[in-house]
Amino acid sequence: MVIVMAPDATADNIDALVELVTSAGGEAYVTRGVSRTIIGLVGDVERFQDLGLRAKPGVGDVLRISAPYKLVSRENHDSRTVVGVRGVPIGGENMTVIAGPCAVETPEQTLAAAHMAKAAGAALLRGGAYKPRTSPYAFQGLGEQGLRILSDVREETGMPIVTEVVDAADVDLVASYADMLQIGTRNMQNFALLQAAGDAGKPVLLKRGMSATIEEWLMAAEYIAQRGNLDIVLCERGIRTFEKATRNTLDISAVPVAQNLTHLPVIVDPSHSGGKRDLVLPLSRAAIAIGADGIIVDVHPSPETALCDGPQALVEEDLSVLRDVAGTLATLSGRTLTPAPARELADV
Amino acid sequence: MVIVMAPDATADNIDALVELVTSAGGEAYVTRGVSRTIIGLVGDVERFQDLGLRAKPGVGDVLRISAPYKLVSRENHDSRTVVGVRGVPIGGENMTVIAGPCAVETPEQTLAAAHMAKAAGAALLRGGAYKPRTSPYAFQGLGEQGLRILSDVREETGMPIVTEVVDAADVDLVASYADMLQIGTRNMQNFALLQAAGDAGKPVLLKRGMSATIEEWLMAAEYIAQRGNLDIVLCERGIRTFEKATRNTLDISAVPVAQNLTHLPVIVDPSHSGGKRDLVLPLSRAAIAIGADGIIVDVHPSPETALCDGPQALVEEDLSVLRDVAGTLATLSGRTLTPAPARELADV
Amino acid sequence: MVIVMAPDATADNIDALVELVTSAGGEAYVTRGVSRTIIGLVGDVERFQDLGLRAKPGVGDVLRISAPYKLVSRENHDSRTVVGVRGVPIGGENMTVIAGPCAVETPEQTLAAAHMAKAAGAALLRGGAYKPRTSPYAFQGLGEQGLRILSDVREETGMPIVTEVVDAADVDLVASYADMLQIGTRNMQNFALLQAAGDAGKPVLLKRGMSATIEEWLMAAEYIAQRGNLDIVLCERGIRTFEKATRNTLDISAVPVAQNLTHLPVIVDPSHSGGKRDLVLPLSRAAIAIGADGIIVDVHPSPETALCDGPQALVEEDLSVLRDVAGTLATLSGRTLTPAPARELADV
Amino acid sequence: MVIVMAPDATADNIDALVELVTSAGGEAYVTRGVSRTIIGLVGDVERFQDLGLRAKPGVGDVLRISAPYKLVSRENHDSRTVVGVRGVPIGGENMTVIAGPCAVETPEQTLAAAHMAKAAGAALLRGGAYKPRTSPYAFQGLGEQGLRILSDVREETGMPIVTEVVDAADVDLVASYADMLQIGTRNMQNFALLQAAGDAGKPVLLKRGMSATIEEWLMAAEYIAQRGNLDIVLCERGIRTFEKATRNTLDISAVPVAQNLTHLPVIVDPSHSGGKRDLVLPLSRAAIAIGADGIIVDVHPSPETALCDGPQALVEEDLSVLRDVAGTLATLSGRTLTPAPARELADV
Repeated sequence: MVIVMAPDATADNIDALVELVTSAGGEAYVTRGVSRTIIGLVGDVERFQDLGLRAKPGVGDVLRISAPYKLVSRENHDSRTVVGVRGVPIGGENMTVIAGPCAVETPEQTLAAAHMAKAAGAALLRGGAYKPRTSPYAFQGLGEQGLRILSDVREETGMPIVTEVVDAADVDLVASYADMLQIGTRNMQNFALLQAAGDAGKPVLLKRGMSATIEEWLMAAEYIAQRGNLDIVLCERGIRTFEKATRNTLDISAVPVAQNLTHLPVIVDPSHSGGKRDLVLPLSRAAIAIGADGIIVDVHPSPETALCDGPQALVEEDLSVLRDVAGTLATLSGRTLTPAPARELADV
Repeated sequence: MVIVMAPDATADNIDALVELVTSAGGEAYVTRGVSRTIIGLVGDVERFQDLGLRAKPGVGDVLRISAPYKLVSRENHDSRTVVGVRGVPIGGENMTVIAGPCAVETPEQTLAAAHMAKAAGAALLRGGAYKPRTSPYAFQGLGEQGLRILSDVREETGMPIVTEVVDAADVDLVASYADMLQIGTRNMQNFALLQAAGDAGKPVLLKRGMSATIEEWLMAAEYIAQRGNLDIVLCERGIRTFEKATRNTLDISAVPVAQNLTHLPVIVDPSHSGGKRDLVLPLSRAAIAIGADGIIVDVHPSPETALCDGPQALVEEDLSVLRDVAGTLATLSGRTLTPAPARELADV
Repeated sequence: MVIVMAPDATADNIDALVELVTSAGGEAYVTRGVSRTIIGLVGDVERFQDLGLRAKPGVGDVLRISAPYKLVSRENHDSRTVVGVRGVPIGGENMTVIAGPCAVETPEQTLAAAHMAKAAGAALLRGGAYKPRTSPYAFQGLGEQGLRILSDVREETGMPIVTEVVDAADVDLVASYADMLQIGTRNMQNFALLQAAGDAGKPVLLKRGMSATIEEWLMAAEYIAQRGNLDIVLCERGIRTFEKATRNTLDISAVPVAQNLTHLPVIVDPSHSGGKRDLVLPLSRAAIAIGADGIIVDVHPSPETALCDGPQALVEEDLSVLRDVAGTLATLSGRTLTPAPARELADV
Repeated sequence: MVIVMAPDATADNIDALVELVTSAGGEAYVTRGVSRTIIGLVGDVERFQDLGLRAKPGVGDVLRISAPYKLVSRENHDSRTVVGVRGVPIGGENMTVIAGPCAVETPEQTLAAAHMAKAAGAALLRGGAYKPRTSPYAFQGLGEQGLRILSDVREETGMPIVTEVVDAADVDLVASYADMLQIGTRNMQNFALLQAAGDAGKPVLLKRGMSATIEEWLMAAEYIAQRGNLDIVLCERGIRTFEKATRNTLDISAVPVAQNLTHLPVIVDPSHSGGKRDLVLPLSRAAIAIGADGIIVDVHPSPETALCDGPQALVEEDLSVLRDVAGTLATLSGRTLTPAPARELADV
């Protein structure tokens, strides 16, 4: 930690800070520059955080040097984490495709979408039973009925299911059906939900907040990790910018940047970032080529009647293209496309 | 609603859309332009929303013309809403100051801050018992103990209390103490929380999400309103931009823009937007001069030891300046500074 | 300047940096923290900049502590600059209104707009003869003919003129007519233009780039100042954000922030930021109340036929309101509304 | 074009607009909706633009449906453009790598960098002789001396040269040496420069403004095209967002989006977007995989002593990796890596 003194800071201001840091068990090293003085602090950063340094007289700025997250940081964690979702791995040498409908609508639609997902090379089935919608007048999902449909389709296809939870109060119920809990972009800083998900004993897919910095995203993961759950997969899904040609701006650089900062797997959602079907395959290629640990895409048997995000769903003719692209590009980057489980589910 | 056809749309595409809209009870008017055809839709927009128009063949874009919010819209609501918080009005001809500590720490600190708030011209006391923090290692608030402290200070000072709730599960508890529920920027699209707050029977202070458009903000208010609660006050608190000199960029234009779109009062938080004490008074002046219905500011008896956001808290010497500024500028714009209630609380 | 070493930096890396800095005439102070080592540098920062520190082995980051601008910095310049535009002051105890048409179209329209400007309390006349337009098919301004019109109107009304220059090659010509050169938002980092304007011997109005940080804005001013011209007025005109309800987001906080960093006057353009007539008066109130040294607004005798930005121009009925507001709010903040010069022009 | 009337528009307002549009030679079709009326316009959009519709009484909004650019639009241009740079193609079935030093410093450094560029698979040499720098105190380039060095290195290596021009007044001089003129991000809306480049008879590499929408970028290209020069290559180089982990946020989606809107080739600059060497290879993979027509990367024989952007330059060990990646990924997407010209220069 570094304290940058204001230009008009006095010697007394500096002495008081050194005294304060020292009395808190730290060490303080003063460097007097031509126009500014800086104080380098050595010791327990969390303790320094509580000293209110930024509000002390003569302080211009306080810079934190070390990362504020610990459990998810790569610094103290040599190997990359491989998260297992009912036996299906995400991370490591694997390239895992997750696919399914944006929202669970009917048993038939969900089953058809699951078959499409498999055809697209997916090992995991996604589908929303609880949908956070900007408008209270939009379809909000089927709730537990949707979870039962997903469960039935898992039985039928063998694909473990990933589904979103939007309220801490629903976590136990959703976790009783799901193989992986998804936390959506609007809830990335819903801390009660993060903590409940951390307690639920299931892997968590944590989408990046649409205006969250990468550091805030990792701090959100830290909330889950702090509850003893390190089975977290991060998902870049586009950030909010001034550009209007796409729904969100996919921050593709976030993949290598985050992989460099954390040991957790990082996947990409090309469907919600672009918001248009014809961008999904190109963005998937970019995501796999840059080294993402997986992708999560929308598929729908009839996008024209979809209750949610139809315009971005892949259709039949896209599926084998995606599977081939995923396989080839994964191999090129030394990874293997994770196969869908056989029908008999791993007994986890 | 207007459908803009893609340049390569066929006559059949257009006919199919007209057919679809008509069969849904609407009317469709086709205008063939030089390079594009557009179809104007007349009828129930919500019903059109469910038709999946954007995913139909030949559709380039679908533009919504009318506002997607209704209950909070000014269009069908002639008079501006005045929200009463245990007898203290926000909105209309009033200019209401809310002040208090970012976080409730001790009874002494809270009481001292309440006296500071009064000295600053505040009629309502703010203070957080539940704090959403980016880091799981930061002070998270005193919880119910904090609510009890607030309640005691209300008893002592007569000031109604505004306090944040961060989880739908806590709404009833918080509402049993608070006079107004605050929903913070990170929870603006926590829909379960919005709905629970809508059911709680207390006025709600809804902060704008730090990357929410004004339309999304009004849609969030609509979630509360839909539960039968129109006692909502909107609070602009800065948005996320590329500029790093301030914590957030106060979107001062949002005040007149929102006041033009909704009948709800709109206030400003100059403390969290600027993030620095020396910006609070200038931003307060701007907020009152532009016509905000109120401001909400941080005060703290000793910012240097504050557990939360000390650097932005006003101190003793700022208080009378703020009170004078608020009074004078309010008068100038034809408003009256709302006085603090006398010690005997209104029996509401 | 502070070098933050990477977590895996070696002792040799650190020694090499200390050696390098020392051999460049500086001093280096090493602070070894728990997870990171930092090196505080004392000496000539510009020289350190040339050492390529960021690319050396073991370097994680290099933080500049002192401001990169000098001539425009407030640090070495005690009094605030008052810029004189043919005798009309901007800055200090003055609150100066600049008004006029977005574009000069005809002598009649320009003269009518000048009278409107005076009625609105303006002391200076603005009007564009060279218009930078997003589309090559839009009206690009009258060029020198427009300058002649402005000059005639100055003769008639006594108001000094502020007009934009968009190409370094035009600076001498424009300066031969204008009393103040305006550099627009798209040209804030057109360095050849900044330098030419710095050489022209006329005051410069420098608009903030629509995506420029405040620091970059001051660096652009430094380009002008470096040519020996400190008669620079900064103009905040809105920045680009995700919000679509306004043309740009007026960064009102930039006024006090910039005034704290530089000795130059800072004014606000409420017309181009909001982009709508009904936002101009509210934003003007906010700008004056926060302490801006002036405002620059669009007026037009018949906005419906304006060749440029008609929707944001003030009309007849707004003028006296603006003048009254400007006068009253200026007084409130201890300033005086700068009067328009009498018809006889100051002989400067 | 569609006019959306305000909710309180009168029948007279609508009639007046229909009359106005009709008298301008257009046709107007009125659709009266439940809450709003819209008017669809058919005819010459440029003419409608001049009518000042947005400022007329009763008008709420005016939506442009057709693209405002024409010459660069894909709508009226069936085949994709292949731009030839002294015989080296960009676009079509080619994947072209451009590489070289950020700035030309010495003949030796430039020649060494050219050899590195070839080793990295580059067919074209980039290098800056005129550098736009945020700070007036930073190295501004060698000017004409730098151009001579580039010319000598072209003689030696056979690689055509791409170099930046920052001022309209320099275009002829730069064009007399360069094979392709680069217009940088800060100058994307320097319209005088765009026009001069359009007149110069050399291909132009147009970088996207760091806060320009894709539409504005295409409008900037239209300025060049309007001068009769359609040899334009667009270059995505990252946009400005709130994320601080990277210098800019590479908008990878802009590649397919722009390729869908224009017939011009679109390449990517992975060096300036990420700003860090270790992001360049991953971003290059993403760019080629998504279908970019090329990439432009920084290489430097000794980044530690580079006068400009050393931290992002590729070094020796990266070169063959890049060449292999470019070749393999290009093949995968049905393209061929453009070879460097043999030493004898094509006589163009």
